[in-house]
Amino acid sequence: VKLLTLARDLKRRRGRERDGSFVTEGVRAVEELLASSLNIRGVLVTTHLADAPRGAALLAALHEAAPQRGFAVSEVSDRDFAGAADTESPQGILAIARTPERSFGTIVLEAGARLLVLDGLQDPGNVGTILRTAAALGVAATVALPGTVDLWNAKVVRGAMGAHFRHHAFGASLDDLASYLERYSVTLWSTSAGGKSLDEMTDPLPDRLAIAVGNEGAGISDALAAMAAMSVALPIREVESLNVAVATGMVLYALRPPRET
Amino acid sequence: VKLLTLARDLKRRRGRERDGSFVTEGVRAVEELLASSLNIRGVLVTTHLADAPRGAALLAALHEAAPQRGFAVSEVSDRDFAGAADTESPQGILAIARTPERSFGTIVLEAGARLLVLDGLQDPGNVGTILRTAAALGVAATVALPGTVDLWNAKVVRGAMGAHFRHHAFGASLDDLASYLERYSVTLWSTSAGGKSLDEMTDPLPDRLAIAVGNEGAGISDALAAMAAMSVALPIREVESLNVAVATGMVLYALRPPRET
Repeated sequence: VKLLTLARDLKRRRGRERDGSFVTEGVRAVEELLASSLNIRGVLVTTHLADAPRGAALLAALHEAAPQRGFAVSEVSDRDFAGAADTESPQGILAIARTPERSFGTIVLEAGARLLVLDGLQDPGNVGTILRTAAALGVAATVALPGTVDLWNAKVVRGAMGAHFRHHAFGASLDDLASYLERYSVTLWSTSAGGKSLDEMTDPLPDRLAIAVGNEGAGISDALAAMAAMSVALPIREVESLNVAVATGMVLYALRPPRET
Repeated sequence: VKLLTLARDLKRRRGRERDGSFVTEGVRAVEELLASSLNIRGVLVTTHLADAPRGAALLAALHEAAPQRGFAVSEVSDRDFAGAADTESPQGILAIARTPERSFGTIVLEAGARLLVLDGLQDPGNVGTILRTAAALGVAATVALPGTVDLWNAKVVRGAMGAHFRHHAFGASLDDLASYLERYSVTLWSTSAGGKSLDEMTDPLPDRLAIAVGNEGAGISDALAAMAAMSVALPIREVESLNVAVATGMVLYALRPPRET
């Protein structure tokens, strides 16, 4: 089956970039994909999917949506499925979808908008968790700079649990980020242990604010730090290190826009 | 070697509880252990430890501290070490230490103290990350209720990166928690998606506050919820689910005591 070959190709970043597609596995993820507006190219299932009621319901929903949305649902053998799947205990379903075409031009930038900038984050689990957090806090967009793990890597997609099927996350260059921030008057703050404590902030927050978080070990790159208007830090005991996903959640929470009244 | 047998026994919760000891693996964790006041029972190393400068430095520090602190440093074969180690790629060092004797009676409860209550959290990685976060935010104690993963499980210890070698974390019963909170006038708040939004809190926070977070799927137990003065929620889009460690970090940050001025 052509979809099988494609799913295997999409395990590698080069394959994903060439085909402009990605794979997502498991019942919950495919439910989220179906509920999103993403372009589904095809779904691979095994006979085991329908063993559980939730799997059977998803299969029925897929068959119903397939003609209108123009994708195929193919049943394959356990062995073929295992060769295409990324997880060790797949639930008997994976889907291939087009990577959404997102860029700075497609960000909806409202008053009080927050952007999140990922600068070289390497751990796919952390990045997936961060995408869920950004989506939950209503961040307008997450921008992954070069050096960050591919947002459509299977582990990121799994960790994000469907968050960036809707949340506006995409990869971009530092130059394009700089141009965008300047053009739309978005203030950039970076985060680092030596930054100004969030407990000492007395001025009102900038209306439109981009917040950059850095690599798990090395932190923010010099080039990005030089672009930032300020560097901020969580008020924590310096001896302890926080998980980057936890730290990002706390910073996004601390710098969320004032509540509308 | 007796230490080898002990390390293997301590892989299981029953073994850890019987011996009142736990195992920690890796260079960084043993560095943290040595820097803590915990009672070290013994250290197992392989010849590979000294291959890297940091490993060699740690080995020297261990040999220096061993006589005074009364523990042995034993070199074992790679094969024996692999049988005792929990990780797949151990760094050639593990240490056995006494589980610290902590209880409600040993909590230092200052003004503005915060306690964290873990109610049935199952994922050791999440719990390790949460312990790091609680330590970093200066939480006075973390109390693990029955149903929560053992705090001295190898994966929790690894995820915590030494945090609860110092941070006052321990397991306790719901009854003992209830007695303590009443006796010391500590307010208990639980967290749940349906709770009062943290953005809508206008009253000053209680001086002494315990914050309970629940199981990844089931949330807070009914018994604990009934004890809580209030249930609070993060101001997030309901459709999205947050990772429990990220959510805990955000809630602890939001409810931190007012800064001393």
